[in-house]
Amino acid sequence: MTETPTPPPADLVVRGAVVLAYSEADGVHFLPDHDVVVRGGVIEAVQPTGEPVPALETIDAHGMVAMPGLINCHAHSPMVLFRGVAEDVSEERWFNEYIWPMEVNLTDDDIELGARLAAAEMISTGTTTFADHYFGMEQIARSTDESGLRALLGLTYFSSDGPAGLERGLAFAESWGGKAGGRITTALAPHAPYTVGHEDLVATALAALDHDLPVHIHASESRIQTKHSIDREGVTPIEVLHRAGLFEARLLIAHGIGIVPEDVATLAAGRVGVGSAAKGYLKHGTDTTPVRLLRAAGVPVGLATDGAASNNTVDMWETMTAFALVQKAVERDQAFLSARDVLEHATVQSARAIGRGDDLGRLEAGYRADLLLVDLSGPRTQPVHDLAATLVYSAHSDDIDTTIVDGRVLMRGRKLLTVDVPGLVAEIAPRLPRLTDRSHGRSIQDYNA
Amino acid sequence: MTETPTPPPADLVVRGAVVLAYSEADGVHFLPDHDVVVRGGVIEAVQPTGEPVPALETIDAHGMVAMPGLINCHAHSPMVLFRGVAEDVSEERWFNEYIWPMEVNLTDDDIELGARLAAAEMISTGTTTFADHYFGMEQIARSTDESGLRALLGLTYFSSDGPAGLERGLAFAESWGGKAGGRITTALAPHAPYTVGHEDLVATALAALDHDLPVHIHASESRIQTKHSIDREGVTPIEVLHRAGLFEARLLIAHGIGIVPEDVATLAAGRVGVGSAAKGYLKHGTDTTPVRLLRAAGVPVGLATDGAASNNTVDMWETMTAFALVQKAVERDQAFLSARDVLEHATVQSARAIGRGDDLGRLEAGYRADLLLVDLSGPRTQPVHDLAATLVYSAHSDDIDTTIVDGRVLMRGRKLLTVDVPGLVAEIAPRLPRLTDRSHGRSIQDYNA
Repeated sequence: MTETPTPPPADLVVRGAVVLAYSEADGVHFLPDHDVVVRGGVIEAVQPTGEPVPALETIDAHGMVAMPGLINCHAHSPMVLFRGVAEDVSEERWFNEYIWPMEVNLTDDDIELGARLAAAEMISTGTTTFADHYFGMEQIARSTDESGLRALLGLTYFSSDGPAGLERGLAFAESWGGKAGGRITTALAPHAPYTVGHEDLVATALAALDHDLPVHIHASESRIQTKHSIDREGVTPIEVLHRAGLFEARLLIAHGIGIVPEDVATLAAGRVGVGSAAKGYLKHGTDTTPVRLLRAAGVPVGLATDGAASNNTVDMWETMTAFALVQKAVERDQAFLSARDVLEHATVQSARAIGRGDDLGRLEAGYRADLLLVDLSGPRTQPVHDLAATLVYSAHSDDIDTTIVDGRVLMRGRKLLTVDVPGLVAEIAPRLPRLTDRSHGRSIQDYNA
Repeated sequence: MTETPTPPPADLVVRGAVVLAYSEADGVHFLPDHDVVVRGGVIEAVQPTGEPVPALETIDAHGMVAMPGLINCHAHSPMVLFRGVAEDVSEERWFNEYIWPMEVNLTDDDIELGARLAAAEMISTGTTTFADHYFGMEQIARSTDESGLRALLGLTYFSSDGPAGLERGLAFAESWGGKAGGRITTALAPHAPYTVGHEDLVATALAALDHDLPVHIHASESRIQTKHSIDREGVTPIEVLHRAGLFEARLLIAHGIGIVPEDVATLAAGRVGVGSAAKGYLKHGTDTTPVRLLRAAGVPVGLATDGAASNNTVDMWETMTAFALVQKAVERDQAFLSARDVLEHATVQSARAIGRGDDLGRLEAGYRADLLLVDLSGPRTQPVHDLAATLVYSAHSDDIDTTIVDGRVLMRGRKLLTVDVPGLVAEIAPRLPRLTDRSHGRSIQDYNA
């Protein structure tokens, strides 16, 4: 008789959790007393807790919920530097008098510090992947590499940059795609159809197809933008993108508030997702992404924070709760969008929205090991009658105990393991007067959407 | 020469905090490096940090914000037992098929356990005073006594209870008013003008005046209720209360969503406050309290959670953020209600709304020592450009380090000192199947507002 060879130990086993699972047939559901077995950054198995599985590291998660890490489908992460600096002003003043003049002040070092502070906030609030759209993307990529997060990164450009904008964006995408052990993927990131002209959008579409890159763009941000677009160009912002050939590429649309029924056929035929940033929509008194319309059309709607200068955090859990509340409020329908549906948007649909439905957003064999352990033993989350409702409507990001990306623990017992927050805060503090100076009279752009 | 007698040490000194202060002229503002000196449960002084003040207990609050404890102007605290049990259903079904049939199941012991669990959540999320309106009020009073919280308690009654309803409510109010070292004050608590008839409202008004008790009542909960009231009775719900003489008494109105301009003169002439529970309004897809109208009329608008069966928490910090966001969203005006205004509603106006503007809601000599110490050193709350915006839009209740009521520390370093949460959760768990049983076919009331 020959001995069965002993398999090498797993890298990580999360033991005895209630696992948030998903299937097309049942949607989001929960599996009590399950283990998650991780090897090489990938989930090898999600299985009922039985005999201990040999592993280099085992986390006892009895009494906790294991769920997919949250995916922020649209962020400008270094803008945490500007949170709270432009409050109680109209959209035009926010851009033209505050944010765009202050963004002129940002050095590469500032951006890297902002990105690292945002990474700390994201890890501590349950984000494992973020889709960033900003300047200084090399610095954000370096911060991502260090922090252990996963990101889809795109360097913002405007037509006012000339052809160099797209060229720089493409060079960034080519040099950083697949870096950080594969945790960084890249996109082309034209700002918006009202700041990037038709020819540059066409060039973007061609470059995206040539280099197999997704395109991440602000579009149809409000019903008024849609009206202005129709007045100026005869078509909706979505149709502006379509005419430029962007629907041939994979497309991630931020906001999509002004999406109208005429846009649906175009959207449904594309490889496209929409990122909805509900907290900011409330704060800015705007409409919201038409989720009911997009769900009916099968267009994935993911969740997003946008920049913290507008909504004050990059906390995706808070965003999830705001998304749920806003949808019920806007539809004036208490039965619309169950807590399980909301969890589906926060996990599976967010992964699909950024084009990663095949390897992110689920705890299932073959998916990347990006997960959260959530502790619901506190008074705000007891008793539990309906775990989905507890997660969406009672729990906060502060109830996340552990954050794991690619099988690596980035936060444990709420202690951040890859970012030094006090050190960062001390480095950022002396920069604030310079960062918020608006006396120079310059601006990144003129906002006139 | 005679020696100056040494004064006895203070009971508590909070040292070196940034103090959230208020004045009629300046509204909410912040005093850096200040001490709060407490003696006999009362604030003796708020003064610049200088020589150490001799005290039995000193808390080093450098780097923290000291602010008035939050006041929940309308709660049904034991309903935390039912959080998440009735989701995604219409208002009628919520009452008639879920909540009122389940409330039949509540024993006095259940209510006491629920009240204690709610007390733990309130202390850990920054509430120091809550206005409760429920059944089993003796049990809630006992829990309040034990937990160290402050409360305005009123026993709910309906006209269907007959005259015994008011009698029991009055007996409770008389026996518990001033108890728990003065931390418990009491109110009469008729349910609503659509469940308590004119004669019982008149009797309530007379009893309130005879016994110098405030009246806490649900009224004008929606625009449809106002319309129904006008259709049925010829007047608005506010005018129904007025006709019954209730505006002779001190009055606390829950919700007030259906308040219309015709109500304003009556409201402004009374000793009245309104409690607004914004999170639930979003979740239930309803309108919201007309804060702009009430502010213009000088009617205090306080913040509230309502019961956790409808909005899933009794977290007043979350309520504060939701209130701010909802008001901007509803007014579609980014400039309406600054973060400082929101903090005024959460503190001074909430105290006035429950008739305690003279001794609660401010950190000032002569006010009760009910305060929070908030730690903003985490990544979500850095950097700080505008402390009010940081508190309202970035911080969460989980950033509260210390909760103090009447000079007594109820939570320190996020550790609850007066409630045993794991013990409570274990006691509550086996009761849940009985509590949620609806097979008996009975109900507290029939909802038909």
